[in-house]
Order: sequence, then structure tokens, then C-alpha cells
Amino acid sequence: MTETSIFWKVIESVSDQGRRLIRLGDAGNVRNAPIEVLSRALVSEKGEASGVAVADLFIERYRSLDEDAKLEFFALLRDEFGPDTARLDAALASYRADEESPRGQSDLHYATEPLRQELLRRINAAPGGIAALVGMRADLLDALREHPDLSVVDDDFEHLFRSWFNRGFLVLTRIDWQTPAAILEKIIEYEAVHAIDGWEDLRRRVDAPDRRLYAFFHPALIDIPLIFVEVALTRDNPDSIQEILAEDRKPVPVEEVSTAVFYSISNCQRGLRGVAFGSFLIKQVVDDLRQELDRLNSFVTLSPIPGLRQWLTDQADADDGLFGDQEKAVVSEPALQDLPGLEDADAEVRKSLLALAAHYLVQGKARDGRPADPVARFHLGNGARLDRLNWLADTSVTGLARSFGIMVNYRYVIDEIEANHEAFANQGTIAASSSVRRLLRVQRTVDRTKSRSETTEPSLT
Amino acid sequence: MTETSIFWKVIESVSDQGRRLIRLGDAGNVRNAPIEVLSRALVSEKGEASGVAVADLFIERYRSLDEDAKLEFFALLRDEFGPDTARLDAALASYRADEESPRGQSDLHYATEPLRQELLRRINAAPGGIAALVGMRADLLDALREHPDLSVVDDDFEHLFRSWFNRGFLVLTRIDWQTPAAILEKIIEYEAVHAIDGWEDLRRRVDAPDRRLYAFFHPALIDIPLIFVEVALTRDNPDSIQEILAEDRKPVPVEEVSTAVFYSISNCQRGLRGVAFGSFLIKQVVDDLRQELDRLNSFVTLSPIPGLRQWLTDQADADDGLFGDQEKAVVSEPALQDLPGLEDADAEVRKSLLALAAHYLVQGKARDGRPADPVARFHLGNGARLDRLNWLADTSVTGLARSFGIMVNYRYVIDEIEANHEAFANQGTIAASSSVRRLLRVQRTVDRTKSRSETTEPSLT
Amino acid sequence: MTETSIFWKVIESVSDQGRRLIRLGDAGNVRNAPIEVLSRALVSEKGEASGVAVADLFIERYRSLDEDAKLEFFALLRDEFGPDTARLDAALASYRADEESPRGQSDLHYATEPLRQELLRRINAAPGGIAALVGMRADLLDALREHPDLSVVDDDFEHLFRSWFNRGFLVLTRIDWQTPAAILEKIIEYEAVHAIDGWEDLRRRVDAPDRRLYAFFHPALIDIPLIFVEVALTRDNPDSIQEILAEDRKPVPVEEVSTAVFYSISNCQRGLRGVAFGSFLIKQVVDDLRQELDRLNSFVTLSPIPGLRQWLTDQADADDGLFGDQEKAVVSEPALQDLPGLEDADAEVRKSLLALAAHYLVQGKARDGRPADPVARFHLGNGARLDRLNWLADTSVTGLARSFGIMVNYRYVIDEIEANHEAFANQGTIAASSSVRRLLRVQRTVDRTKSRSETTEPSLT
Amino acid sequence: MTETSIFWKVIESVSDQGRRLIRLGDAGNVRNAPIEVLSRALVSEKGEASGVAVADLFIERYRSLDEDAKLEFFALLRDEFGPDTARLDAALASYRADEESPRGQSDLHYATEPLRQELLRRINAAPGGIAALVGMRADLLDALREHPDLSVVDDDFEHLFRSWFNRGFLVLTRIDWQTPAAILEKIIEYEAVHAIDGWEDLRRRVDAPDRRLYAFFHPALIDIPLIFVEVALTRDNPDSIQEILAEDRKPVPVEEVSTAVFYSISNCQRGLRGVAFGSFLIKQVVDDLRQELDRLNSFVTLSPIPGLRQWLTDQADADDGLFGDQEKAVVSEPALQDLPGLEDADAEVRKSLLALAAHYLVQGKARDGRPADPVARFHLGNGARLDRLNWLADTSVTGLARSFGIMVNYRYVIDEIEANHEAFANQGTIAASSSVRRLLRVQRTVDRTKSRSETTEPSLT
Repeated sequence: MTETSIFWKVIESVSDQGRRLIRLGDAGNVRNAPIEVLSRALVSEKGEASGVAVADLFIERYRSLDEDAKLEFFALLRDEFGPDTARLDAALASYRADEESPRGQSDLHYATEPLRQELLRRINAAPGGIAALVGMRADLLDALREHPDLSVVDDDFEHLFRSWFNRGFLVLTRIDWQTPAAILEKIIEYEAVHAIDGWEDLRRRVDAPDRRLYAFFHPALIDIPLIFVEVALTRDNPDSIQEILAEDRKPVPVEEVSTAVFYSISNCQRGLRGVAFGSFLIKQVVDDLRQELDRLNSFVTLSPIPGLRQWLTDQADADDGLFGDQEKAVVSEPALQDLPGLEDADAEVRKSLLALAAHYLVQGKARDGRPADPVARFHLGNGARLDRLNWLADTSVTGLARSFGIMVNYRYVIDEIEANHEAFANQGTIAASSSVRRLLRVQRTVDRTKSRSETTEPSLT
Repeated sequence: MTETSIFWKVIESVSDQGRRLIRLGDAGNVRNAPIEVLSRALVSEKGEASGVAVADLFIERYRSLDEDAKLEFFALLRDEFGPDTARLDAALASYRADEESPRGQSDLHYATEPLRQELLRRINAAPGGIAALVGMRADLLDALREHPDLSVVDDDFEHLFRSWFNRGFLVLTRIDWQTPAAILEKIIEYEAVHAIDGWEDLRRRVDAPDRRLYAFFHPALIDIPLIFVEVALTRDNPDSIQEILAEDRKPVPVEEVSTAVFYSISNCQRGLRGVAFGSFLIKQVVDDLRQELDRLNSFVTLSPIPGLRQWLTDQADADDGLFGDQEKAVVSEPALQDLPGLEDADAEVRKSLLALAAHYLVQGKARDGRPADPVARFHLGNGARLDRLNWLADTSVTGLARSFGIMVNYRYVIDEIEANHEAFANQGTIAASSSVRRLLRVQRTVDRTKSRSETTEPSLT
Repeated sequence: MTETSIFWKVIESVSDQGRRLIRLGDAGNVRNAPIEVLSRALVSEKGEASGVAVADLFIERYRSLDEDAKLEFFALLRDEFGPDTARLDAALASYRADEESPRGQSDLHYATEPLRQELLRRINAAPGGIAALVGMRADLLDALREHPDLSVVDDDFEHLFRSWFNRGFLVLTRIDWQTPAAILEKIIEYEAVHAIDGWEDLRRRVDAPDRRLYAFFHPALIDIPLIFVEVALTRDNPDSIQEILAEDRKPVPVEEVSTAVFYSISNCQRGLRGVAFGSFLIKQVVDDLRQELDRLNSFVTLSPIPGLRQWLTDQADADDGLFGDQEKAVVSEPALQDLPGLEDADAEVRKSLLALAAHYLVQGKARDGRPADPVARFHLGNGARLDRLNWLADTSVTGLARSFGIMVNYRYVIDEIEANHEAFANQGTIAASSSVRRLLRVQRTVDRTKSRSETTEPSLT
Repeated sequence: MTETSIFWKVIESVSDQGRRLIRLGDAGNVRNAPIEVLSRALVSEKGEASGVAVADLFIERYRSLDEDAKLEFFALLRDEFGPDTARLDAALASYRADEESPRGQSDLHYATEPLRQELLRRINAAPGGIAALVGMRADLLDALREHPDLSVVDDDFEHLFRSWFNRGFLVLTRIDWQTPAAILEKIIEYEAVHAIDGWEDLRRRVDAPDRRLYAFFHPALIDIPLIFVEVALTRDNPDSIQEILAEDRKPVPVEEVSTAVFYSISNCQRGLRGVAFGSFLIKQVVDDLRQELDRLNSFVTLSPIPGLRQWLTDQADADDGLFGDQEKAVVSEPALQDLPGLEDADAEVRKSLLALAAHYLVQGKARDGRPADPVARFHLGNGARLDRLNWLADTSVTGLARSFGIMVNYRYVIDEIEANHEAFANQGTIAASSSVRRLLRVQRTVDRTKSRSETTEPSLT
């Protein structure tokens, strides 16, 4: 007997992706119907009767749509698959009669449920349904840019995906050199932070004894990673991504490691935007690593600061007194645009840039009052603290272009995580180490003219 | 290396049930808090920060509650975990401003979502969360009998379970003699129709070449079957359950089978009431069997008629002219209470009882207008048709007590299923074979006095 | 997709038992040939050409033989499938020319290889070949009783099986409640020491937290255990098998166990007689248990003494002065034939019987000079020592009948095993604890008339 | 819970490679002993007592030996681990007393077994034992070149490996894109016929719908393929390897394939020389493919003719009248040394070279009378027939250098295989198609001066 891949057979059978279509009859008279008719059939009794045959037809039909037809379909979902208005009116009347009644509130909630939610649930029943829906959402997100009024449809996708991709249903898997090539090539494809340059580079990241890669999967979508994190086990807090990725480095013996470095986290499915995987992933991996290697006592990231340079440039241009001439000079200094200049930078310049980076991370805010830097937002929101800024830590073209080569370590201290998260979420407090705080003081001296007006400055832990 | 059970390791790893708890810190100051405090923490930032530690504490706490404390907890969910009223009021105001606006409708829907839904989702994130929730729902259903005002809480359980146990996430598995004993003993325990009398009886039902047993599982609850169906492969439409279950029968060679008989379907999880698995299960099994055994051309059930005797007795007592004296006599005839009497019954009596059974199945209605018999409701609702009534088909004590030993075959005709289902759902039409219709005519003759007023008589296909 | 049993699929695919037959052509003109023709074809070029088709035919044909035909076949193997005599003569001539030559010795060895070895190897190539051969050997062992001249054929079976069932190819598996029922029922069937009384009894032996069952499997015969051992984890050295097997006992919490008790070891395949699995099994299980439970510090058996009573009776009858009247009286005392009598036995009688048992185990010899008791032979040969004799330790009918209810603990002391084994193998030394040695002194006093002549008495460690 | 690789866990557990060492005591006083002492201990009682601890030490020690020490060790095996001479003498005496006695013959056989066989069997019992032995054999084969007198040691390795790697113990596995990367990279490494140029080239060979790769594994050596075959599914008999390997070719839809082309077969383990896997592999794959794709009706190879050019050059040089001037001219024509010349060759030259190739394949003999070409020997020995010679079928440098770019199809005709094999094995008959026979007649005409003396010319089917 020949076995293609035992692994895959086991997983497929659990995920049931190989499920054959139930062809009861021929899904009757809707076989060649347009997608609107199929959509209506799917939420009718016919949809229920057909097992999953109509849902299967629907998916096939959707795949054949061009961009315009998809847009039309999304508009249909918005306009024709809202709540049952008669039921809504009745529920509203009851609710008004007694606004305190749990029954009335509940009935109002279910009466306002748009029909498109049921449509999406019925599509999901087909073989490959969840994959089709995740792809459909990606199309919808594209369409949203030009058609923001489709956002009500997106609300329902996001609502259902948050429920279906609940942490309780996810599976954490280590990816290594024993993993099927079909999964490994998706890792190569999806790596978003430090691109993987082919199979040998991948191998260095998954097969070395001091390297790990973990991913979340969903059992109904088992051949597609949802998110993954790359981990280096090191002796110390790392200060250079190039060292971590070096081709010729020698693995650190496992007896000597003390630190787990999360040096890359990549979300894989655009269609799952808004479903938070990252925090659960990091915390689970921290937990697993602690159980496996009891000598690990330090969990840090080595993270990019993607928005730094743009933000500094914007601030310098703004000329609102935030920056003194010295800072402006540094930010726009041509010699600091590339590696030789940065390597030659004197201590003063270096200190100044690091101070500006600290300032950006702690005080740079987006309109919603949360940190301007998206990576900072993520890790601080997870309960990490700002630990250290690293000079010339990413000397790649990208690293120089976005942050003068500076990278940051966020540190996950087990006993601080909850308190940090709560302080951050409730008061906007940003936890930072004393070394980062010292850098802020540098900045403050320089920036003394502004300090009085900074009423929204977050307190520091 | 010793391997407890490879099967189990594979499945567990996919279902992630063995996931260890993420103990970041010690879930802080809520470690010893009462369930109300834990519930509130779980939906707060703390709950988010803790990974799943608070959820895990919650589950542990819930398990320790006695019946009264559970009741109190359910009341808390009803009274304190409803929608955010400020948000609700704001959404309502917007909605009133433009009732046609999809945005306004959508906002109203999400504003009315009770906080307990989020609570349930966060509980689910813990290891074993879904199993804990299914158990909690079973407790709630118990409580509902005395406390119907908890039904708003149950609405949310049912809503979430329908979404989470969507067909797209279920796995169909054949259960056989290679299945782990731990699963097999659950089959013995859950069989609800024809009790399994120990391991040898089970073996006859799963290990014979002409017997099958299929079950649905959910990947996050993989050691617990959700529903299962037992199938006998036979030469003909079966007319006796005792023959199917006989200890000493000879298996039918697979080359000679033409008929798949669904002779028992058992739901296993009380906590999943309201989630429809049965229709999908039957249709998937029909499909799989057709693909495996192309000589199969007939798919029927051999089903009990659990409500027959009670209904007939009620009708006879009602004395509303529906029954003539002859029918009343038959229904209450002492000789027909047990097997010898039924075996001795003459053709007239036999015909009369079968006609009454046909009458019950076709015309006996519950208050909601649907068939009075729950099994009929299920199969007719799935698109099957009434095919044949079988005399002395279940001679067990139970079989005699509830239906004079009569059983019924429902037939699943592939090309009829959709039409039958739609006609049943939309017009209440009951599909019946000519043999059943002939029995109805017998009844009509007898029952001529009533025939004119039967305006609601369903049409027959 | 339906999956019968993932476990089984994985294992089957590895064991390749499901391998389909290679039917190149139709194995030509031998399709209907008698077994003699098939045997000759199999070792000819045809056998090689046919892939495994002729081997497959052979197995089918063998299965159809009756007892006489099998006997005839075995005689054929003996008489017609010996060595190639021409080659043998040539090799012998070379050997004589230079008896020291490694080449000459080697050629003589291969020239004397009987053709039946190649026949057996070619049979093995067919799907199910190894299972067929193990069954064939069982038939041969039956035949041997009446036909000892077939032993040359058996030599080759044993030689090949020892090579094929080398420890390096075996797999140790824990059997538990997650194991497929098909394997579990074989455990019930093969238990040879303390019969398993149905599924509930089995469950007590594999599913309790303080019970283990381990088995060796061969990958090409994966659905059939070769040997298994049952282990109880206890607080102390056990002195009663009934306590271990009690239905209503309470499991010992794993934190309290210090002792692993091997209370039953069963060989499963008669056809594998002469292949030593037991020693490897015990040592591997000791090793695995030590790694899993570091608090375990004691590894003992609770073993029957199957030959005790018969041996004592023989000795008493022999009247050769070995036994004094007192011993004779005890051995033949009717009151000691059943439980009440043994329970009432006074200290003197009890001491006397225990001393006789110690005497039997240490000094009772078979003709080959090894211990008369087969269980003693096994454990002492593995390097265990005699640890303790237990009064009323097996009160079953069998236990009373064969050893007055006395059982023995053999103890495996890690640091002694090699030395014990070597001393036993080379000098016949039997390792015994001081408590057993004390019992021997009791015996010696009683038995003083014989002591001088016991020149072969083994020394005691 | 994190799972490195479920697949690997399952397989490892079956292969038991992860088996931990049984460290009973510390393998006593041999821990630091030289390999000679360990070897003797291993075949003594100590070796038996220690479970597998001494075997494990042995493997560790062997690994540390340098080349000279290995040579010394092999000489030790030859000189000191031969048969027990006393036992041999005794057996010889008995044998001489009655040379016809099966018992005497059998005893002589077992008495001549060299002790090194038992040594190898005991090494095998250790974890990783079989892998160590296969590596040791590879070392021995290296040593054999300079030290042919070690061949008696090699006889025993080969004997044991033929027995242990019996077809009945092998597993056929399809290798595809779901296979772990760790296995795939071994395929890249071991491909011996048409080198695989990195992962993308591999992917084209295993992941396209019209490509297959099958390998044999042994359960105790499961991470190492033993032999593999690459298959292309095509519409026709192929005539160019470059077409098959082309980067940009379009896969043939499975509905259109009729032919399975075995275009590469690679043995992976030098240490297993002499164990025949290839014939079983091809026949099993033919069988599996026929069962999977019933439209396949043609099974051919596209094979190199590695010895052609050398043989022709030798023949031309020999000047023994076999070749006329014309042939000599062709063979040595400089214009035919590279691709442009061959592409420009006129029909006459082309015909002449193809005829010479046919002549070589059919009539070129090695000293043992079997075909001179090793690939021909393999496929003809398996029962295939010479089917077609293909001009410019391998235009790689290698292809031109060894066979003027000519390749050959061997055809496996199911109903002919046995007869072809037998005729080849017994009479040296080579099966050839009429097109090949026509080419031979071309040659004969040219070569008429020699034809009378060709008394050993094989007949053609």
C-alpha cells in the first residue's frame, strides 16, 4: 500500500477538508443560477434541505466572479441581507414596553441580526467553506478602500471570524525540518518581517538547535498557518538582527541559552484582520519554552521601529517647537542616510538619535491616543515593556530607511504582564526600563521648551 | 520509547486539549475570588491580559459550585451581563434617525449584544473550555425547567453553539473495532434507541462486515462523540429490529447488499440541544456509503413510533368522534397489550392498528402544526418519506408499550429529498408511499364521519 | 471523508500489511499446482520473477492443507530442501585442504545452508508472509511431538525467527484504554498467568492510574502482540495476587508509589518459541518506568511457583532420604489441600512449607542442572534474585493446587543484574536474599542427613 | 501543547529509533574497554545480561575508530570470530558418519556459523543498531578494495542484510510535497541518475500531477530511503529525458496519460550492496499505479546506456574483425563527440550508431556471460524487454559522453515478465521488440564476416 503522507492523512481526516460533497439530487433548479439566486436559496429551506450542495455551488460561483461582480455581491449583502424588518419592529415595540427586561433586550438583539450572518454560516458548512470565506473577506477588505459603506458587511465577517477562530479552537504547532514541504513553503511566502531567502535560509531558522518557529493553525484550515513567530535562543539580550540571521553563525549549545528572542512575528491571512492571534501566540510560546527549557529566564523581542524615521521627519517639518535645531539637523543629515555615515556617527549623534527613538516610542501617539508605532502598540498592549534601544541593530536597507538601523527590545516579564497590560489599556501607561527612561531624560533636556504643554504624557513604570 | 496511544497523541495534538495552562504571573489578585468577581475580571482588560489564566480559574471555580450557586450564577448572567445600556441607547437613537440605514441597523445589533456572549467566548479560550461550556449548558437546561426566565441566557448558549458546531467544523468518523476502547464505551453509554448490552453486542454492531457506525466529532472535543448513527447493510427493506440485532445472525455478504438501514440515531450531548446534527449526519453517511458501495440503491430507516400508543389512547379517551367504537376497542383491548395477543391478532385487527399508525404519522399533529411524532418530525423534516409500516417489528417490552410493536421505515430517495423537505417546511406536506396511503384510506372508510372537516389534511406526494 | 481508524491506517501503512498483491501475469502455470510444485517454483527463477505472486499462492495453498498434508509438507522440507550436496562436497574438499582458512570455513557454512531457509525467506516476502510463517511454525511444533525427526526443519524456523525478531526490530508499546479494541481483546485472549475475566477486568488492569501493561510488537505483524507484561505500582513489596487483582481496590496515588510489581508476563505466539523476548521486555520497562517515575526504587515480581507441589510430591514419593517424615507428612496432609486448611495451618507447618519452597527454588534442578521451576529459571536467568516467599499469596484454585498458595517475589536490583546473570550462567549461582537463605537453613536442619552429599549446591549471593 | 511533527512521532514510535538506552548498572567494567574487549563481551553472557548496554557502548566505540583501527577490527572479525572449531570438528565427524542425514547436515551448518554473525545480531539490538551496521558495512566495502581477504566478513554482513531487509519487512511510500523536508533533502542528495538541481527541481518531480516518486523504507531505519524510483506519467513512449525534466513543461492531464515512465532509479545505501530492492520496487509501483489509474497500459523506462561508448571504443580498438571500417569510423569520428555533430549526423550514421547500440545491448557480454551494460542487466533480469532505442534522447554532457546521447526504453509487459525473466536467467535469452531486432539485422549485414562464429548469440524473443 502506498501512503502519500501519513501526516497529511491524519490531519486531513480530522480537519475533514477532504470531505466529499453531498450531492443529493443535483441541488435542483439552482445549478446554473446566478449568485444572487444561490444566496437566497442558501438561506431558504432549499439550502437546509440540500445538505451542503447549495453552499458548494455558491462557493464555485463566487470563485468565477470578477471584481465588479464581487462588488455587486457585497452590495447585495449590505442591502438585501440585513435584518428582518417586521421582526425588528415587533422586537422594538416589546423592548420599548419594558426596557429593563432581559427578554426584551435579547429579542431585540436576535431580531436585529442581519440575514447575511446566517448566509455566511451556511457557506461555512460546505467542504472548504471556511477557506472560501477567509478569501472572500480579503476581497471585501480590498473593496472597502473604495467603498467604505460596505463596512457593515465587514462587521459581520469580523464578528463571525472572531468567534470561529477563538483561541480555544486553535492549535499551536512547532514547524521544523520534519514539517511537510508544502507548509514550509508557506512560511517562506508569508514571512513579513525579515524575508526568508530560500530553503537554506529557512533551514537555518527551523532546524538549528537554538532556533524555533511556532505557528497557530485552525483544524478546519489545517494546511494554512494563521500566524507564526520565529524564536532564537541566545546567551544574552540580542542587539543585532544580522547576527541572528547570519549564515555562518555557530549554534549556541542548549546548556548555555538563557534568553528566548522573538525576532519575527508574521500574520499570514489578510482575510482574518481584526482577529487577535499574536498575544495568545507569544504567551503560549513563552509558556511552552519555560516548561521545556527551565534555564530560560528572559523573554525579549528584537523588533523593528517601522514608523520612526517618518515620524521624526514629520515632526522636524512641523516646526512646532518640539524639535530644537540640533534634532532637526540630525534627522535630516544626509550623512546619516546610509550605513557608512551611521557607523561613523559620533557618540553625541548616536545618543541623540536613540533619545529621539525613545521619545517616539513613549510619546509618539496616533490620533486614538495609542502609540504611533504599530509594533510598539502590539507589544505594549500585550503587557511587555520597552527594554532597550539598539544602535546599528538592523543594517539592512529597510532597517536604515525606516529607523536609522535602530531596533528595540520589548521584554516580557512574566510577573508584570497583567499589570502592564491593564495600566496600558486603562491609563495609557507605557512600561519602560530605566535605560529607556534615561534616554527620555536626554531628550527632555534638549526639548525643554515643550515640556510644560505635554499634558498627555504617559506615566512611566 | 513507549507510546501510550499514537492515535490519541495525534488527535490530542490537533485538538490541543492537552494544552498546558499559561500561567503568566498568578492571575493576580483573583486567584481566590468568587465566581462573580472572576466573571467580571474575565470580560475586563485583566481577562485579556492573562492569556487564558483567568478563564482557567473560572472553569475550576464553576466546577466547585453546588446547584444553588449555579442557579445564582445563571441569574447573574441574566441580570448583570446584558447589553451595555448606554451604548444601546445611543445606537437606538441613531437607528431611529434612519431606520433604513444598514449602518444603523448593524450598530443596533452589536449594541444589543449581551456581555455574557463575550464571557462565554473568553471561557472557551481556556484548555477544556468548550467541554466546560457544554456541561454548563446542560446545568442551565436543568435549571430552566423551574426557572424559565433564564431562557435569555440559554438563547446565547444556543446561538454560540450553533455557530461553533457548524457542520464545517465537524468531523465524520467511522467507529469500528479498531477504535479506542475509551470511545467505544461512550457509544455503549450514549445509545438511546436500542440499548447496547455490553461489549459483545457492541462488537456485533461495529465489527460485522454488514454493520457500520458513524459519528460526528468536533476537533476541540475529540474524545466525545456528538451524535452517531448505526447502519445495517441488508438485502431488503427490513421489517424487524430483533432480526437486525440478533446475536446469531449470519452477516450478509457485501456483494448481496442493496439497502442501507439506519436503525438507530443517538444524540450524545444534552448540552448541545438545539444544534442540528442529525440531518447532516444522515446525508453525509448516505453519500459516503454510495461512494464506497455502488450497489447500494436503497436508504431507509427502521424507526420506532414512540408516541403512537399514547396518542391513540388520548384520542380514544377524547371521545370527540374521531374514533369509532371499533378503533376504541382495538386501542384498549387488553389482549393487545402484550406479545401473545399481538401475535394472535387477526388480519382485521392488524389492519386496523396499522391504519391507525398511518393516521397518527400523517395526521397526528403537535400544537405547532408539525407531526406529533418526534421521529417522524425529524425524518420528514430531513426530506425522507413515509415508506412502510411493519407489524411486530419491535417485540421488545418498550416496542410493545409505545407502539404495539409497530415500526416504520422512512425512505431517503436522493432525488426527492430537497423537494420533500421544501414541501414539508413550507406547506406541511408529508411524503408517503402508496402503501401508506392505502392504509390511510382504510382509516378513512372507518372514520367517514370526520372526513369532511379535515380541512388541514396535508396533501400526499 | 470517513476514517475507519487513523491509528490503524498509520500503523498499517508502516507495517505494509495492507500491501496489495503484485499480480504480474497470473503466476503462470503454477496457479493450481500442489504445494510441492509451488515450493520448488518459489526457490527457482520463477519465484524470483513473479515478485511475490508465487509466495502469495503458496500461502493460500498451505492454508488449505489438512494435518496430514502439512506433515507431508514438513517431511518434504526435511528431505528435499536440504543443502545442495554438490556444492557441499566441493566446499568440504576445500575446507579439508586448509582447515584454518576463514574462506574455507565460510564457504563450508554457506554451502551447508539448507534450501528451505531460502524458501522461508521467499514466503516472507508476500503480504502477510511473516504471519503465515509464524502459524506454520506452530503447526510444525505440533507435528514435532509425534515426529521428532522434523526437528531439523524447526531449527531453520527458529534460526530465522531469532534473526527477524531481533530486539532491534521490536517496538515497545503501552497498552491502555485508548488502545483499539481489536488489540485489547487479544490481550484478554493471551493472558496466560492470571486470566482476565472480561472487559471490566481488563480495564482495571490497563486504565487505573497505578496499573500498566506493556507489549512488544513487530512492525510487520503489528496487530498481534508478541509478549506483554502487567505491572502494578504499589507502596510496598506485594504479598497477595488477589489484592492486586481485587475489583474494589482503591488506586494508589502516584505520589505514593515506590515499587513496580511485574505480576504477569505472557508470551502470545506459540510459533515464536525459542525467541527470547522476556528479558528485553522487563529491562526496557524497568528503564522506561524509572525515567517516568523517579520515585520508583524497587522492581519486583509476584510470581507463581508452578512446579512446587508436583516436585515436593515426587520427592516425598522418592523416599530417597531427602525428606524426613515431617516433610512427607506436610506434603501429603489432606488438610493442606485447600484454603481452610492452609489458613488454619500453625506456624510450624507454615514455616516448613515455606522452607520446602525455598529449597525447591534454590536446589530443585532439572536434568540440565538448571532450576527445576520454569519461572525461577526465567527470572534468575535474567539476573533477578530470589527475594521473598509469600504465604497465602495466591488463594485461587490453581494457586493452591500447584504451590499451596505460596508465591515468590523475584527482585531486579539494577546494579546486580549483570553480575547475577553471569554468575548464574557460568557457575549456576542463584542469588537469594537473606530471608530466603534463612528459610534454607530451616530446611537444612531438618534435612541434615542429606547435606553432605549436596556437592552441586549452588552458592548463594 | 506543541507537536514538533506528528508524522515523525508516529513513525519514530513504530521504528523505536528513539528508544532510550537501557542502562542497567553501568555495563560494568567494560565501559572504557577497547573494541576488541567489547566485541568479546557482547557475545558472552555479559552481553546477554546487559540488555543492550554493551551493544550501545560498542557502537559508540566503533564510531571513534580511525581507518586503521577499523581495518584492524575487520581483521579481528575475520580471524577471531569464525566458527567454534571444536563444535565444527564434532559436527564434521557426525556428518561423515552419515552424509545423507538431515540432522547431520543441519548440525554441520550451524556448527560452521561464524561467531561474528552473532556479534552483528547483538549489535543490532541496540538503539540505532541497524543504522550503525549499515555504516560499518560501507566502511568494510571500502576496506575490501585493498584487502580482499576481508570478503569472508562481508559475506556475513550481506547474508544478514538480505535476511533483515527481506521484501516482507519493507514499506513502500510515496514521496511528495507533503513529505517532511528532512526526507526530501535526502532524495536530492541520493539521486544518482539525473541530478536534482535544488528544491524547485525536486518539486517538479514530486508535486506535479503527472509525476511520482516512490521509495522503500525499513521500519527500523525509517528516516533513510533505501531506494527510490521517479515516474513520469505521459501520453506516449518517451524519447527524450530533457523533455521529461524540462522546467517549463505543462503537466499532462491525468485523463490523457497512458504510459508510466520509470526515468530514474537510485539506490541510496552503499552499505546495503547486494540486497536486491529494485525489482520489487518496480513491480510494486507498476501494481499500485495500475490499481490507481486504470487507463495506464504501458510501463516503460527511459534508461541510459552507460557502457556503450566505452564498449564500442574497446571493440574498435580490438581490431578483431568484429567491426568493419565503417563502424570504426563512426565510433571515432570527432564530429560525433558533441551535440552539433550528432544533430547534423545523416540518416546513415544515425542508423549505424543505433545499430551498434542494439548490438551492444543484445550481444555485448561481461565475462560472466551476462549483458555488459549494467542497466540492461538489471531490467532484462527483471523480465523487461528491450523496446526502443532513442536518438538524441539525452543531450547532456554525460549522455553524450557515455552513449552518443542514445537512450533506451525497456518495457515491462505484465504477461511477459515471468517468462522473460526465466528465459534470461536460464538460457540468457534477451527479449527484444521487432524494432530492436530490425536494428540488429542492420548490424548483421554490416558485420557479415563475423556472423558465422557467433555461436553464443542469444536467441531473441
